[in-house]
Amino acid sequence: MIPVKPVRPDDTLKLRRVAIDTYRENVAYMHRECDFYRAEGFQALTKVEIRANGYTIYAVLNVVDDEHIIGTDELGLSEQAFAQLNMEQGEPVRVAQAEQPASMEAVRRKILGERLTQEDFRAITREITDNRYSKMEMAAFLVASGQTGLDREEILFLTRAMTESGERLDWHEPLVVDKHCVGGIPGNRTSMIVVPIVAAHGILMPKTSSRAITSPSGTADTMECLANVELTPKALHDVVRKTRACLAWGGTARLAPADDILISVERPLGIDSQGQMIGSILSKKLAAGSTHLLIDIPVGPTAKVRHMREALQLRKLFEYIGDHMGIHLEVIITDGAQPVGGGIGPVLEARDVMQVLNCDPEAPSDLRQKALRLAGRILEFDPDVRGGYGYSLARDILDSGRALRKMEAVILAQGATPNPGPPGPLTFEITAEQDGFVTAVDNYCLAKLARLAGAPMDKRAGVDLLKKLGDAVSTGEPLYRVHAEHQSDFNFARAFSEKNSGYTVGAEAEISKTYWEF
Amino acid sequence: MIPVKPVRPDDTLKLRRVAIDTYRENVAYMHRECDFYRAEGFQALTKVEIRANGYTIYAVLNVVDDEHIIGTDELGLSEQAFAQLNMEQGEPVRVAQAEQPASMEAVRRKILGERLTQEDFRAITREITDNRYSKMEMAAFLVASGQTGLDREEILFLTRAMTESGERLDWHEPLVVDKHCVGGIPGNRTSMIVVPIVAAHGILMPKTSSRAITSPSGTADTMECLANVELTPKALHDVVRKTRACLAWGGTARLAPADDILISVERPLGIDSQGQMIGSILSKKLAAGSTHLLIDIPVGPTAKVRHMREALQLRKLFEYIGDHMGIHLEVIITDGAQPVGGGIGPVLEARDVMQVLNCDPEAPSDLRQKALRLAGRILEFDPDVRGGYGYSLARDILDSGRALRKMEAVILAQGATPNPGPPGPLTFEITAEQDGFVTAVDNYCLAKLARLAGAPMDKRAGVDLLKKLGDAVSTGEPLYRVHAEHQSDFNFARAFSEKNSGYTVGAEAEISKTYWEF
Repeated sequence: MIPVKPVRPDDTLKLRRVAIDTYRENVAYMHRECDFYRAEGFQALTKVEIRANGYTIYAVLNVVDDEHIIGTDELGLSEQAFAQLNMEQGEPVRVAQAEQPASMEAVRRKILGERLTQEDFRAITREITDNRYSKMEMAAFLVASGQTGLDREEILFLTRAMTESGERLDWHEPLVVDKHCVGGIPGNRTSMIVVPIVAAHGILMPKTSSRAITSPSGTADTMECLANVELTPKALHDVVRKTRACLAWGGTARLAPADDILISVERPLGIDSQGQMIGSILSKKLAAGSTHLLIDIPVGPTAKVRHMREALQLRKLFEYIGDHMGIHLEVIITDGAQPVGGGIGPVLEARDVMQVLNCDPEAPSDLRQKALRLAGRILEFDPDVRGGYGYSLARDILDSGRALRKMEAVILAQGATPNPGPPGPLTFEITAEQDGFVTAVDNYCLAKLARLAGAPMDKRAGVDLLKKLGDAVSTGEPLYRVHAEHQSDFNFARAFSEKNSGYTVGAEAEISKTYWEF
Repeated sequence: MIPVKPVRPDDTLKLRRVAIDTYRENVAYMHRECDFYRAEGFQALTKVEIRANGYTIYAVLNVVDDEHIIGTDELGLSEQAFAQLNMEQGEPVRVAQAEQPASMEAVRRKILGERLTQEDFRAITREITDNRYSKMEMAAFLVASGQTGLDREEILFLTRAMTESGERLDWHEPLVVDKHCVGGIPGNRTSMIVVPIVAAHGILMPKTSSRAITSPSGTADTMECLANVELTPKALHDVVRKTRACLAWGGTARLAPADDILISVERPLGIDSQGQMIGSILSKKLAAGSTHLLIDIPVGPTAKVRHMREALQLRKLFEYIGDHMGIHLEVIITDGAQPVGGGIGPVLEARDVMQVLNCDPEAPSDLRQKALRLAGRILEFDPDVRGGYGYSLARDILDSGRALRKMEAVILAQGATPNPGPPGPLTFEITAEQDGFVTAVDNYCLAKLARLAGAPMDKRAGVDLLKKLGDAVSTGEPLYRVHAEHQSDFNFARAFSEKNSGYTVGAEAEISKTYWEF
């Protein structure tokens, strides 16, 4: 490596906080008339290295022509970057042109199709975590490792490196369980039923979840209709110690931070490689201290995994990485032919969950069944539960009301939130245009519709499914109802659903083949 | 495609110019307390679509917490973005979340290894030119097309699409010539000799060049020691009409803009695929109205192209694309074993060039020979020049002083610049540590050294080569002299050259094999 061009000893600038939020990208602001800018021949968008107070951070340079924003003897930092330095305004900082991260050399080898080593992946995740990678450098890494693909050992290297990139929780218990669904199925809020059942049995299940990014609601968004989900690491710990469970947003813990940073590039790009997905899921779970993990892979024509052969291959990969990382991992392949439950969107999903926990006869039976199957498999992680008895044990816990009481305890411990009220007041229904049977339901289309109606930002917006796959319908009978809070969302959702309802009505013989567990 | 979420009709914000230079990336600034920000659930770094005055531009969102920078009813735009709207501050603009560019779907297909069509490449370059692609989306495109590679038809599609992405000059003459060197050889300033020779013969040669990006000097940087190179399109046209030549910076014309934008991602990433390189070079030349083009591919162990087989393959590709794009294209493979000429850095290179034009006996003979060979090939594009007679014709033009007079006319037409003075006053020499012969000279290392000494920002900084490949040297004899203007650059260059001088001295038999034209 060529050494970094050194800062001239007398060249320091005064630190200034610039109240601009640049999310996960550090931005530095320098005045165009700043001597230092002119001498170094920086260009806007150059990556610079800022050193002060024993810290080194990296930022992208923006050049400013307005002294109200930044003076000629100052270096401005966007909010996130400023916070990282832990310094006062006006203190001296040194700036130099940053060299490209050293591990980009490994990324270039990956672009050429080479296989990378454990040390390569460690170097890449370390420099990503240190904010040395720009968005475009991360995109290069993601595309390169998505395209020629990572072999399973490389996925293991990546998972290990991402797990090590941040803190790691240790619950000091032999059995710490978790579940994860590979995704793509709207309404699939099984965690909010599984967690209380498992914790009621006494197993520790500290569940953290994401908010929706491209879906109409994440578990954290739905749980937020009932309880506070933004817990400090300390509060989360207290909730878990008190109730043996939690249902919180995972964004506050610094677990596998390299993964969070990569996701901020992967999601907007819409690229999604198998290796990255497995590394992302497992590194988070391992960093969270899980010892046992159940992975749910829904398969269906409009699910994320569309073919059984793909699900089986994914299962093998999960098993391989899990075994080598020392986590007990089981995979369950489930029916992903249609949304799970009746509602899509935070309030509607919370209603479904509470109906199941209350053993309400109106509760959606598919959500209840799926949650019981998952909970049963997790209960069997307990050495004292006889193989094959998990399902009936889970059912007993649910039907006895113990799961409901556990949920109430978790809500109380996290802090109950005010009732967000009933589903959105602006509604319209989509009806069957012919007699027949529901032969297909498009997960993607209904998720999009719920988002257009306002979910997850508007908690009360969403779609309420009145018919499911295989149901008989007659002309004019409602298939689903859309709820919105704002007229413009309502109009837009309606225009969209009129173009594509997401439902297909046809002859009984055409009903989509469903996939069940192997 | 899912339609874009519409802007609520009453939602406009007041336009404000924010004096921040974000180079090729449009940035929009919105206050965190802006109603619109809260309602839409934007996140910092979201891509937004801004519509006003019949224009639509795209920008990356930054969220501001300081009303001095942006008010709650305003939308700020960085300088480049503001200029694109062509509006006054305070005028109403509409903002909406931008959908991902539609052609990212083709990029994702490329990631999966598919072959793209002409229409795909058109859509991608169009959306890149319209600023719809973020840096990371462009990185995804570049890596994907570099990794599985583009086949030669895809390179043709890309070249055509990039050529069409901007304006195209038409000189209304049957013979408009240009040359291009694939690069990697420091000091290789042949254009400044070839252009006056060719133009003195009467052939139109409107040469635009780049500034140095990773090299110690581009043709534009060296020419700037003699004449103004930043010409408006109108001024450039006048110079060419008057002198039949120019030696200007190409950055002011809007030729093949998709290429400029892609380069702003490709260069910092340090990725360089063959397909992108060919597309980039040829689209620029085609857009500039060239009818005949000579491509120089230097080959050498530390050049960009390291093996003859690679050079030959590249030549075939250039010929294929050139033929299909309707440009007369010839490729010359040259010796890239060491720097060309004596000086590296703007002033030192300008000195070499003027020595050659003045037929000074001190002039570096390799630079003179190479320039004559290239000029000779270009002169033979003229149907009136007999095959094989180009070289001697070029030599006659040079030796008669006609090339020098043409150069003086071009300098006068572009506007002479004040003499930047002699090479930098701070100097040190690197000497031979043993008796023997110069057996290898590292292009990369000497280019890096010249940059560390301050080139191209400090015009007088650089490296003056005193010995070349094959020269006999005795212990303590100087190999080269480094010139700097600033003490810190001097120190850093010295530290670097002490670690790696870039010269190898050994036995006569070890002298690097050189490559000559096929």
